[in-house]
Amino acid sequence: MFAAGSETPMTYCVGLLLNDGMVLLSDTRTNAGLDNIATYRKTFVFEAPGERVVTILTAGSLSVTQTMVARLREAIEDPEATPDTSIMLAPTMLQVAEMVGAELASVRHDIDGKMNAAKVSTSASLILAGQRAGGAMRLFLIYPEGNFIEATEDTPFLQIGEHKYGKPILDRVVRPETSLEDAQKAVLLSMDSTLRSNLSVGMPLDMTVIVRDECRVGSRRRIEAGDTDFVRMSEAWSLALREAFTRIEI
Amino acid sequence: MFAAGSETPMTYCVGLLLNDGMVLLSDTRTNAGLDNIATYRKTFVFEAPGERVVTILTAGSLSVTQTMVARLREAIEDPEATPDTSIMLAPTMLQVAEMVGAELASVRHDIDGKMNAAKVSTSASLILAGQRAGGAMRLFLIYPEGNFIEATEDTPFLQIGEHKYGKPILDRVVRPETSLEDAQKAVLLSMDSTLRSNLSVGMPLDMTVIVRDECRVGSRRRIEAGDTDFVRMSEAWSLALREAFTRIEI
Repeated sequence: MFAAGSETPMTYCVGLLLNDGMVLLSDTRTNAGLDNIATYRKTFVFEAPGERVVTILTAGSLSVTQTMVARLREAIEDPEATPDTSIMLAPTMLQVAEMVGAELASVRHDIDGKMNAAKVSTSASLILAGQRAGGAMRLFLIYPEGNFIEATEDTPFLQIGEHKYGKPILDRVVRPETSLEDAQKAVLLSMDSTLRSNLSVGMPLDMTVIVRDECRVGSRRRIEAGDTDFVRMSEAWSLALREAFTRIEI
Repeated sequence: MFAAGSETPMTYCVGLLLNDGMVLLSDTRTNAGLDNIATYRKTFVFEAPGERVVTILTAGSLSVTQTMVARLREAIEDPEATPDTSIMLAPTMLQVAEMVGAELASVRHDIDGKMNAAKVSTSASLILAGQRAGGAMRLFLIYPEGNFIEATEDTPFLQIGEHKYGKPILDRVVRPETSLEDAQKAVLLSMDSTLRSNLSVGMPLDMTVIVRDECRVGSRRRIEAGDTDFVRMSEAWSLALREAFTRIEI
């Protein structure tokens, strides 16, 4: 588990790399000051089903991440796209990570140029999850400068944004052999702890599940505020924690 | 729950203000770089049993907090001490908080003067817990600038240092009516989550319990690395969490 983003976190995103697949969860709260709060999708899927799936979760400056995603999409849709310009054609996921990192750094550089006087943070970090037919599933955390690290068996999850509140539960239950169902439960409970502690992380949530070797998004689910399943799970977890607490002897 | 300290946290301290008393826990890890780690007590008790008890937990620059504690102690021991100079004579706990805050800011200012060229952080924050005979128990968080906030019924706990990993458990189980025994369990589990996630927070731990209206330290306990009770509790909690996780339905 590694995390990035020295900016005040207004986001929580988490990605799990498991034997059975990858599970990704993001919130949608974005703001420009506490009096200007909005909902923006932070999960972006690029997909050629069966051939390649690339999913990007974003934390940080909305102007940076939106522009970056728009440029990646433009490069993919360019009729003259090549393996050097399009993340859907790049030969390996490592090269996809390098391209996305370079695009992030480039957009940041462009926007920083306009922001000199304003001292506004244009920092952003990303989680990148992907697989191409014939390749391995890979999960990266891309730092604001464009460099990145990769999830491994020892560290099967990566977080960006407000990562600390939700880390203890992941530390305790997530292993490479965790099932996709348990993994979804784990990221939702991790998000639940974060939502309780940081008002700037907010519903709705976007959950993405990618099954190993399918090279497509297996399921996408938007969880709205008040979602009865999520509320029930959140309450059951609170109750279970309090009961466990009562049983522990000092 | 509020927290202070923008410096890289190398500490976790927590204080609880409950109907039955106050419970305080600190770690002891101090460092000057990862290759220079030492153990220093971060809990300081000033006591005139039955008359007044004042306990200070410290996070941040060791040179600041040590000097501050030494100056407070010197002022107490001064034969010409007055209610304006000694925290053991000040008429109210609010005035104690103001004196400690002013001393913290003053020491910081002095040391900053020597540090100009070095760009070393001299930031520190404190938890202050106290009661005088005839007064109320009060629990304060003192910021590096010397200003402070106070725990209330709505926010019965205060944290300094690496506070986020250990907050979810406190949010869920600590209420003003929590017993002193459960409170000790809660702060130990909160510390346990922090120890697992941040290597720069370390054993041994110092636990202090102050029973309401006794105006003395009811119990002090140092918990060493490998303490069998603590290890057993930590393992039981991990097991309980994993069992609770298994039982929750998504």
